[in-house]
Amino acid sequence: MFTVKIKADFLKNVVDATSILVDEAKLHITQDEIFSRAVDPAHVGMVDFKLKADAFEEYDVKEDAEIAVDLEKLRSMLKLPSTEDTISLVYGEEGRLVVQMGNLTRKMSLLDASGMTDTKIPSLELAMEVVIKSSELSRGVRASEAISDHIALSVDPDGFELSAKGDTDTVTLKIPKSQLVSLKCTEHVKSLFSLDYFSDMIKSARSGEIKLYLGNDYPVKMVFQIAEGNGEITYLLAPRIESD
Amino acid sequence: MFTVKIKADFLKNVVDATSILVDEAKLHITQDEIFSRAVDPAHVGMVDFKLKADAFEEYDVKEDAEIAVDLEKLRSMLKLPSTEDTISLVYGEEGRLVVQMGNLTRKMSLLDASGMTDTKIPSLELAMEVVIKSSELSRGVRASEAISDHIALSVDPDGFELSAKGDTDTVTLKIPKSQLVSLKCTEHVKSLFSLDYFSDMIKSARSGEIKLYLGNDYPVKMVFQIAEGNGEITYLLAPRIESD
Amino acid sequence: MFTVKIKADFLKNVVDATSILVDEAKLHITQDEIFSRAVDPAHVGMVDFKLKADAFEEYDVKEDAEIAVDLEKLRSMLKLPSTEDTISLVYGEEGRLVVQMGNLTRKMSLLDASGMTDTKIPSLELAMEVVIKSSELSRGVRASEAISDHIALSVDPDGFELSAKGDTDTVTLKIPKSQLVSLKCTEHVKSLFSLDYFSDMIKSARSGEIKLYLGNDYPVKMVFQIAEGNGEITYLLAPRIESD
Repeated sequence: MFTVKIKADFLKNVVDATSILVDEAKLHITQDEIFSRAVDPAHVGMVDFKLKADAFEEYDVKEDAEIAVDLEKLRSMLKLPSTEDTISLVYGEEGRLVVQMGNLTRKMSLLDASGMTDTKIPSLELAMEVVIKSSELSRGVRASEAISDHIALSVDPDGFELSAKGDTDTVTLKIPKSQLVSLKCTEHVKSLFSLDYFSDMIKSARSGEIKLYLGNDYPVKMVFQIAEGNGEITYLLAPRIESD
Repeated sequence: MFTVKIKADFLKNVVDATSILVDEAKLHITQDEIFSRAVDPAHVGMVDFKLKADAFEEYDVKEDAEIAVDLEKLRSMLKLPSTEDTISLVYGEEGRLVVQMGNLTRKMSLLDASGMTDTKIPSLELAMEVVIKSSELSRGVRASEAISDHIALSVDPDGFELSAKGDTDTVTLKIPKSQLVSLKCTEHVKSLFSLDYFSDMIKSARSGEIKLYLGNDYPVKMVFQIAEGNGEITYLLAPRIESD
Repeated sequence: MFTVKIKADFLKNVVDATSILVDEAKLHITQDEIFSRAVDPAHVGMVDFKLKADAFEEYDVKEDAEIAVDLEKLRSMLKLPSTEDTISLVYGEEGRLVVQMGNLTRKMSLLDASGMTDTKIPSLELAMEVVIKSSELSRGVRASEAISDHIALSVDPDGFELSAKGDTDTVTLKIPKSQLVSLKCTEHVKSLFSLDYFSDMIKSARSGEIKLYLGNDYPVKMVFQIAEGNGEITYLLAPRIESD
């Protein structure tokens, strides 16, 4: 049983971020935070978000709980006009989630959480770390979409590079170290990724900055601060193996 | 024969409001006002609007007239950019309606008004009366659309309630008396309505407030002020019979 | 070989204007200007634009060159967000066009310019000349689209007229001389045009004014100033022969 209250927009951010990969998600409600992890059906992307108790206007969790929700149902509430409002989620005896915004209440049936396996976060050693303005990354992604369905991300001690190769054309976004928010990199690494997944993932970065952890032919890990610093979204995206 | 001139936006309001129910409408032009009444082909909804002479910038009606118009034709003129302009309607000997906006003129053929039966307004005794902010009503309608195709509207002396029931979920918008613009209600009444019709109807409420007259398993009557108080749109919507 | 740098928006204007008629265009790069001419496959419309060296922030053209480009490729770069930026075009030994916006680079393969015939501008004597606000012209065009697929344009010493005739309705935009930006006209002339082409063409007029040269059953010539006066787009549109 719990009663929590949060800015609708904070909740929308994590629900949108998760729904690019899955339709249903298991939420873990603990004394300290609400978190959820999910892997898409193709096992290419993973999302892991947490909203700390401090992100909430009210946070009353008597005992830990796990509930499984249909994300589209939550989204339909969060899409209503004037989402600056706060939204409260109450879970009680009835076995339904009561979602309330002002005078509006939706009682939502839940899915069977016991049937959903818990997603484990793989431990990855990704030594290279770069922080980039999301607007710049997004431009590189959109330019790449015109010519290919995958991109290469690489870093070396001098800077970051996103590149795409089409049949006749190439796109390159090359950001020198001086224009990056930060860069920790000792050697050149490069991996190839699906453009669709990457493009969807960076859309959740509302804070304007994206932290990427990169390796060589290795997954990329992306981290965004959310809920004014009281939460975090982490994505993992598996690499594509370069065929040429 | 008449020549009238009005803010394009005032005319757009009533034309849009009528066209959710019918494609063609008979306009009655009298010395005091222009009015029109129409029932949709399924006989579920009725619209009745009037624009008083004071709503017009020029109102020169020599003798009463009835003309039947294709609403889509009028809408195509009213959708043009900068509709803040005034629009003039002139009906003369030619048997066509001359619609003028600035330097632009459309001569519009009319339909045969004699073939269209006059719509009579049923006399209804709807004792309960509630005035609600249209933004709040609209949120309740949108939340309901996610789970059902019909809604129940009810009032009692304590407040107003809109509710929808889906297979597994429910939506309720419950506005206590203190948050209503006004409420005249002596006993609890409740009726069920088609969500599609109701949703279309409340979109015409530009003034921000909607007056509803309700009964028990009875039609709902909705009234909006338009043209800065110099006109009115009234809708009647037949109830659905609750099957469960 | 050349290196030029220009406001992305100036380039977007001419690329958009040309792409309503053709998918590929031959650009002529000279010491003084970049220009291009193209005729659509149906031989109904012609576009001719020039951007003078003064329109560019950098203009380094060692020797005259002709390159043939896929307009959609250029558009995909120019559609990216924050196109207020400048864009640089570099053509060198590789035989590819290097398009650069900030840190983003697209290397673009070119088409075979030798296989594209040069478009000759027909010499036309169009004595009547009228300058109209594009917003007003655009309203007339949109109103006409509701009833017909062609329009008549006419001028006489008293003013300008655009008109369309449908099965039952007519649309007329009649602008008296006093409301025109300018008018040079000694006698009444009138020609009929395809509405689709005309509508697409006037969309490129960003300066707010359109200069039209008209004759009797003759093509119309339209001229817009672009790039803050350092360039020009000219369209020619063939007349339709009035059947009635």
